[in-house]
Amino acid sequence: MRIAMDIKETPDSWYNIIPDLEFSIPPVMNPSGYPLNHHDLEYMAPYPIIDQELERKERRIAIPEEVRDIYSNWRPTPMYRAERLEKSLGTTARIYYKYEGCSPTGSHEMNTAIAQAYYAAQDKDIKCVVTATGNGEWGASLATACTYFGIKCKVYMVRSSYEEKAFGRYLMEILGAEVIASPSDKTPAGRKALARDPYSQGSLNVALSEAFNEANSRDDAKFLWGTVMNHVLLHQTVIGIEAKAQMHKAGSDPDIIICAIGGGSAFGGMVFPLYPGRKADTRIIAVEAACCPSLSRGRYAYDYGDAEGLSPMLKMYTLGHNFVPPSARAGGMRYHGLSPLVSALYREKQIEAKTYSQRQALEAAITFARVEGLVTAPETAYALAAVFDEALKCKERNERKNILFLLNASGNLDLDTFKEFIGGAMEDPASSEENINAALGQLPEISERKTG
Amino acid sequence: MRIAMDIKETPDSWYNIIPDLEFSIPPVMNPSGYPLNHHDLEYMAPYPIIDQELERKERRIAIPEEVRDIYSNWRPTPMYRAERLEKSLGTTARIYYKYEGCSPTGSHEMNTAIAQAYYAAQDKDIKCVVTATGNGEWGASLATACTYFGIKCKVYMVRSSYEEKAFGRYLMEILGAEVIASPSDKTPAGRKALARDPYSQGSLNVALSEAFNEANSRDDAKFLWGTVMNHVLLHQTVIGIEAKAQMHKAGSDPDIIICAIGGGSAFGGMVFPLYPGRKADTRIIAVEAACCPSLSRGRYAYDYGDAEGLSPMLKMYTLGHNFVPPSARAGGMRYHGLSPLVSALYREKQIEAKTYSQRQALEAAITFARVEGLVTAPETAYALAAVFDEALKCKERNERKNILFLLNASGNLDLDTFKEFIGGAMEDPASSEENINAALGQLPEISERKTG
Repeated sequence: MRIAMDIKETPDSWYNIIPDLEFSIPPVMNPSGYPLNHHDLEYMAPYPIIDQELERKERRIAIPEEVRDIYSNWRPTPMYRAERLEKSLGTTARIYYKYEGCSPTGSHEMNTAIAQAYYAAQDKDIKCVVTATGNGEWGASLATACTYFGIKCKVYMVRSSYEEKAFGRYLMEILGAEVIASPSDKTPAGRKALARDPYSQGSLNVALSEAFNEANSRDDAKFLWGTVMNHVLLHQTVIGIEAKAQMHKAGSDPDIIICAIGGGSAFGGMVFPLYPGRKADTRIIAVEAACCPSLSRGRYAYDYGDAEGLSPMLKMYTLGHNFVPPSARAGGMRYHGLSPLVSALYREKQIEAKTYSQRQALEAAITFARVEGLVTAPETAYALAAVFDEALKCKERNERKNILFLLNASGNLDLDTFKEFIGGAMEDPASSEENINAALGQLPEISERKTG
Repeated sequence: MRIAMDIKETPDSWYNIIPDLEFSIPPVMNPSGYPLNHHDLEYMAPYPIIDQELERKERRIAIPEEVRDIYSNWRPTPMYRAERLEKSLGTTARIYYKYEGCSPTGSHEMNTAIAQAYYAAQDKDIKCVVTATGNGEWGASLATACTYFGIKCKVYMVRSSYEEKAFGRYLMEILGAEVIASPSDKTPAGRKALARDPYSQGSLNVALSEAFNEANSRDDAKFLWGTVMNHVLLHQTVIGIEAKAQMHKAGSDPDIIICAIGGGSAFGGMVFPLYPGRKADTRIIAVEAACCPSLSRGRYAYDYGDAEGLSPMLKMYTLGHNFVPPSARAGGMRYHGLSPLVSALYREKQIEAKTYSQRQALEAAITFARVEGLVTAPETAYALAAVFDEALKCKERNERKNILFLLNASGNLDLDTFKEFIGGAMEDPASSEENINAALGQLPEISERKTG
């Protein structure tokens, strides 16, 4: 059952959660250990994005008309009640999901890609945007958004994904983006990684450093973030703003909100708008991959976003910017840290974290596909594992709760992952204690005194 | 710019064009050369589908409520005006497209898959539906629809697609369908084909014969058609019914309607509802692939739908049921015949046919992707080649015409095709005169006297 919204109900502003939090968010720091200012971020982003990154007071940030027009090409996205799934699980819970798979690239990443490409294109000095991507969802979304505004897009893509999960790469190249396998010999960070290991399969940390290197060395290019940063989560709040209205239309208030978490952009986009008006006993669950348990096993500390320490320092749950997760199929879930805003919510015990293995996640996704007729991205699979658990608990306890989860992306670019899993050939990766502790031992030193 | 419709405007009936035609449609024939009756079709389809196949008088066929509910999960589909494309071509024409890529499988095939799976599931004796597919769009749509109604789905898939364009297969298997590479050793038709050529890469004609074999040999299974037949085109008319309303909302009447044609289901679904009220000078263009020019080079004759002559005989433009098209990437365009209804419209000079090469088509699709940010299926690419030509003619003549085309499917399952094309490694297949003439020489003999 679809809970529809009219095109006129497409949100006209993004929601900034900071003014509604009862606690303060530690500032982003520059490498000298001082809170970041506009100037520190100029190399990184167009001006309006810097404003959004640093905004602390305004709850509503207006969406530019040109951006809203493009959102309206597929927004408001549908919400569905998964009645066949409820029946199949025999649960007394109602299960709702917000569906972002209907965007042009099949993923929520379009929401921020459009905004960022728009702001970049407004600045006549910017001819090219540079970014890093794992399996290509973010890169493909940015490549798509760049076609709308006629600017060039260059993407450093983790080599293992570039070679093995090539469909994300194909999509970017068809759309006209330039895609470089990382580590490459084209940047200092890439050459350093290749010197360490000439056969390196890459990691998002290194790809990010390469993209920073390139953006920093060019006057006509800016780096754009796909997740983690406040402005990215801000753009994603169109998801939760719509979801809130749709749950209201359905006459339901969510008792349990479930969302997978990698860098935190889908999670923040879904959860933040539902946060201030939630019922007192509403549970919010962030679901992590066992291969990269930033919340469950990480440390709440200042850390870099990339391998070379070229990004600002963020106070976040992190496994260390040198952490290299084991090979796993949920590209977006393999990042060492996560959004400072989501990290603060977890620190303040406003949200829970749960961890599932790849096997548990993909099994849940296969079941979902065969009941609801929809193949989700592997990221969503982790959320589904938690949804199944909570729905079955409701069944045991005969509770009629409303479970709401985010289906952040379709599985279009990941069909080979599921196929391999069905074939039984897939390992179940997990991070060793040694691996995690070694990376945590390399967290940067920073004087927290200076932040007051 | 999106021309939206409300969910409440999802069509509640399909449109049957036959009562609105000024000429008669030759009947479907059984192998004895007599017009087909209900009994002849029983092996092939559930009863309500047979009724729809043979319906001659009713214009409006009610859509069952359960089917309409599922349509409403993504219907009405959007119509867009391609303003960036207009600007990029510098054309004086307005270019609109109806977009079916937002269905769960990214293709228009869902429209009939749902209806057919629904009718099959209503019959308690039917436990399984059997079909044949090329690159997997139709098979994946039927597999998806079967999850909604809890019936099994078995698909004979052309071996070359099964092996090389495996993403369609993956999708079907993830959804729980059984997929068999054709020719197989499991059916008489498959064994016959393998005896002729043990290394056969298959063709849709043979895969269809195999699916007929299986459905005929089982009491609990029915064969379902993905295109060609009247009932399939009927189900697809939701596209054109919506498109008509959307063009009205846009304040535009189409001057040129363009649609790619393989078996004819997307074409019929788009064009038929726009046919009776069209302006006198409206041009309707069916775009064929040069590798399989059924309208342009075929003969208007009774022919079988499959290699072994197990299907009824259809009066259609055909290249002969033994025609084996050269390898090409537009799976749905490689069929030897096409819908009797579309064939009759062409015979009566109500529509035009145009042929484009694979290179022309894919080049147009790449241009479209880089301007509009959307990768289409290769089928749509052929339509785009014609759209570009017509838009440029308008530019030359300074005419402000309204061009409407169907974007029948996204390119999700075909990214490798475009990637290979960009890489320059792709040949441009064409059918030789010898190949076509040889197949036309094997058309079945039938006494047309008996049809009156």
